[in-house]
Amino acid sequence: MKLYSNRYGKAKVRVLKKLRENGIDTFKELEVKVVLEGTFDTAYTAGDNREIVATDTLKNTVNVFAYEKLGVETEPFVVELTAHFLDKYPQVSGVEIETEERVWERITVDGSPSPTNFSVAGKVVPTTYVTRSRNQLEINSGIRGLVILKSADSGFADFDRDEFTTLPDTEDRLLATSLSSQWLYGAKPADYRETNERVVETMLSAFGSKESPSVQSTLYEMGKAALAACSEIDRISLTMPNLHCLLIDLSPFQRQNQNTLFLPTDAPQGWIEGTVARGE
Amino acid sequence: MKLYSNRYGKAKVRVLKKLRENGIDTFKELEVKVVLEGTFDTAYTAGDNREIVATDTLKNTVNVFAYEKLGVETEPFVVELTAHFLDKYPQVSGVEIETEERVWERITVDGSPSPTNFSVAGKVVPTTYVTRSRNQLEINSGIRGLVILKSADSGFADFDRDEFTTLPDTEDRLLATSLSSQWLYGAKPADYRETNERVVETMLSAFGSKESPSVQSTLYEMGKAALAACSEIDRISLTMPNLHCLLIDLSPFQRQNQNTLFLPTDAPQGWIEGTVARGE
Amino acid sequence: MKLYSNRYGKAKVRVLKKLRENGIDTFKELEVKVVLEGTFDTAYTAGDNREIVATDTLKNTVNVFAYEKLGVETEPFVVELTAHFLDKYPQVSGVEIETEERVWERITVDGSPSPTNFSVAGKVVPTTYVTRSRNQLEINSGIRGLVILKSADSGFADFDRDEFTTLPDTEDRLLATSLSSQWLYGAKPADYRETNERVVETMLSAFGSKESPSVQSTLYEMGKAALAACSEIDRISLTMPNLHCLLIDLSPFQRQNQNTLFLPTDAPQGWIEGTVARGE
Amino acid sequence: MKLYSNRYGKAKVRVLKKLRENGIDTFKELEVKVVLEGTFDTAYTAGDNREIVATDTLKNTVNVFAYEKLGVETEPFVVELTAHFLDKYPQVSGVEIETEERVWERITVDGSPSPTNFSVAGKVVPTTYVTRSRNQLEINSGIRGLVILKSADSGFADFDRDEFTTLPDTEDRLLATSLSSQWLYGAKPADYRETNERVVETMLSAFGSKESPSVQSTLYEMGKAALAACSEIDRISLTMPNLHCLLIDLSPFQRQNQNTLFLPTDAPQGWIEGTVARGE
Repeated sequence: MKLYSNRYGKAKVRVLKKLRENGIDTFKELEVKVVLEGTFDTAYTAGDNREIVATDTLKNTVNVFAYEKLGVETEPFVVELTAHFLDKYPQVSGVEIETEERVWERITVDGSPSPTNFSVAGKVVPTTYVTRSRNQLEINSGIRGLVILKSADSGFADFDRDEFTTLPDTEDRLLATSLSSQWLYGAKPADYRETNERVVETMLSAFGSKESPSVQSTLYEMGKAALAACSEIDRISLTMPNLHCLLIDLSPFQRQNQNTLFLPTDAPQGWIEGTVARGE
Repeated sequence: MKLYSNRYGKAKVRVLKKLRENGIDTFKELEVKVVLEGTFDTAYTAGDNREIVATDTLKNTVNVFAYEKLGVETEPFVVELTAHFLDKYPQVSGVEIETEERVWERITVDGSPSPTNFSVAGKVVPTTYVTRSRNQLEINSGIRGLVILKSADSGFADFDRDEFTTLPDTEDRLLATSLSSQWLYGAKPADYRETNERVVETMLSAFGSKESPSVQSTLYEMGKAALAACSEIDRISLTMPNLHCLLIDLSPFQRQNQNTLFLPTDAPQGWIEGTVARGE
Repeated sequence: MKLYSNRYGKAKVRVLKKLRENGIDTFKELEVKVVLEGTFDTAYTAGDNREIVATDTLKNTVNVFAYEKLGVETEPFVVELTAHFLDKYPQVSGVEIETEERVWERITVDGSPSPTNFSVAGKVVPTTYVTRSRNQLEINSGIRGLVILKSADSGFADFDRDEFTTLPDTEDRLLATSLSSQWLYGAKPADYRETNERVVETMLSAFGSKESPSVQSTLYEMGKAALAACSEIDRISLTMPNLHCLLIDLSPFQRQNQNTLFLPTDAPQGWIEGTVARGE
Repeated sequence: MKLYSNRYGKAKVRVLKKLRENGIDTFKELEVKVVLEGTFDTAYTAGDNREIVATDTLKNTVNVFAYEKLGVETEPFVVELTAHFLDKYPQVSGVEIETEERVWERITVDGSPSPTNFSVAGKVVPTTYVTRSRNQLEINSGIRGLVILKSADSGFADFDRDEFTTLPDTEDRLLATSLSSQWLYGAKPADYRETNERVVETMLSAFGSKESPSVQSTLYEMGKAALAACSEIDRISLTMPNLHCLLIDLSPFQRQNQNTLFLPTDAPQGWIEGTVARGE
């Protein structure tokens, strides 16, 4: 038997980078896959790892290069990364890198594009939920999966602490969530579609313009704003899973991550729900 | 033992409707779920189906109502549908309908919004694929999953026919596909991001402006246009699965479906690939 | 510009075949992708479809060959199919076929393997749902996504008929569903895991041993059997989406499909729910 | 406006626990969702977090309880967890916990059930890939997505180290991967299905019986064993993404995690490929 061919690398390396210029943020998110070819045969055939660059090291390298080189364009960053692996490791003969981008767009807040609030381009699903019996008709409209991010004016502090608490207070964090919401109509609007769009725009404006001491508070402000803006709506429910973006520790590589490079995660998620209604 | 509670209905009923006005199309796509409550107990407990409206009938009803009532707004259509089930069937005491919308937006063709070409709002994923050895560097950029639809100037005829062929020739069909594409840079552009956007816009313009005798031909025209518009690109590959939209037969219900209501499907898919390069 | 390379075919062609021998069924399910290479250039470059075998014809061919050739082994069927495309079409120079199988296993009914009841190998997810307030504790266990199929003793007839009904009565159909269920414990069992397994086995035995006049009736019988077998359980809910398996019409190809070859579908789905409790 | 209702918690908390008894391991994997009700209103309406138990604390609590209480049965663990949240936090009035289990089964190694090798119950997809031209026929069979885990005799050490390396050497780690493989037939076997099953069983036996100094080495041993066991096969390719299971740090809670509780992750993944052929 013989080793006919081989390659290895690291897949699904996720990075979210904040490019801040004059107080205006831009976000760039990539998922990166690096695959190396080279003289790795003895690792396969003889259990000798000396030529193997650990896949964990590949991930660290992607992080360091993302921190130092990644800008609005993806390609120059990827090209430098391929050069690095060839320059650094004589045992490497070929490098293959693939990236996929999750595109973030600026949210409109109070009529103008926000410098620090974003949504994932276009991924919203409008929904309806209507129930009717012989006596009653309830019309709900909604949206599902609107991914939004707030890069300023968000903190979380002064919460309950006990022996199971390790989370430090923070006055400055990224707040990301996948908003799903449903609102109950109390009166027929002139146009459902327009009203639904106004509800969403109003929630996004509130998300963007209010200081956030917690997801709970932001959720309530968004619901309140929607009710204030649309008199036909009686009640609104919001679900806002907290999609944690973890600051990547670059101190082992003599870099101080200045709140710039994050690891976006899907699990675990904070899970915040609330319903806001008219009245007191 | 006793039947404590029960409900039934039909889920994942998909409809795609063309709303044509003065030669300008608008597309509305819903996935509908209908659930009924009522006096269905003996179907569960005694095998007596007499009170059961078949779930297939529920689907047919959604289709007929979508054909006759569905417009730009979702809610009035859903409300009428709930009323119908209560009016029509005395055994029904409650109706619950949920919808999810896939939103179609107008494509820009040659600088202006097209009356008959569309894309699913925002679902594009930019990609890169870079390979490098000691001697060679290849930089590819691309996109994945751009769902587009062409509602005029698309046919498919005069193809090879044999005893396994049942598809009739058509001069008028919906053409829908999920475009993935990758292009190879021969020279460094001034700005990758801008160039990539120009490639995509050019392909969409070609998709929208050319008469389509087949997916194959449309694919080739899109690739040619991209190469013509961007001199830095040497070669471009496109994959265009044909997402068939089937005309729903309403003749059993005494309606003539005037090329208006379609069933969008994911399986099976036509699978069309091609690569276009410079030279002869 | 020139066409550098090209291929096309049909993806996601699904077939479900019943192999009946001496009253004992075996099920074979494949998803097939066929891709052809050949002299198709003028379809791309000149809008000339004469060399193009329609992707719909490819699907029909897969169906006819599945009907006539597909057995327990996949490979001989695929090999014959590749030979056919080369033999039949001089313009074809190469064929590539990929398949994925969904494996069906025999269900144990009343202690022995059933000749006509099946489940998708191993895809069950055990669940729990526990709620507790200061006064009350409710413990539910369950499963999600157990795909099962019944190939005999299943019909659906004598239901409500009106002008929206096209479904004919049938005394012989495939019944397939993805069972999700949740049961409420009234008393602590000796061992939750064992009891949960007994609940599932009992439901599968009832599914397999009872004549089915409707999904509703089968659901009720399954719930009743579970309560009868496990005294610690007070109530059980079942959700059984009807995964329709459509008989494929082969009459255009001079074949009479003898209830043998089916198209498994995911959408639309019948949606049947019910809860069974102790008492009268 | 008023806060009509509210709840919050933590979703997608994943834990993988090794239950070791007399050198025989059993694995238990859950995804947990905890939702709390209580007097959290001022967090929503006044930005006052004092009553809020951080969702991060909820996750830590799940981890500590999983470490101390989770056994073969899920329900007792969940019940204790609900009691804890009510006992510990006076502001909590209700708790809801949902779990989903990923079931691990023992692999058969050299004819008997292994004490330390496992696979996810039943999730394998058989595949074929056949290509044919006028001159050549290649028949490949394979599988996709067989998730396997090795809890003893797996390490990774003595690899290339540089300034981007942080991974320590280890002589004892969990090795988990989702095996996809494809083998090329050089001769027609008596029965494809039986041969395919023998290939898979042989690979699993090699996975289970060989000491693993790296995924690369294990991959090669598996390929070699398959070729040795099945003479009709000429070549076999394996892809083995490394599904890292991270030891959960419980030291902040005064517990020493004795290689017992792990966080299973999907991203990033090591990505290991190799092809083994006959000859030298």
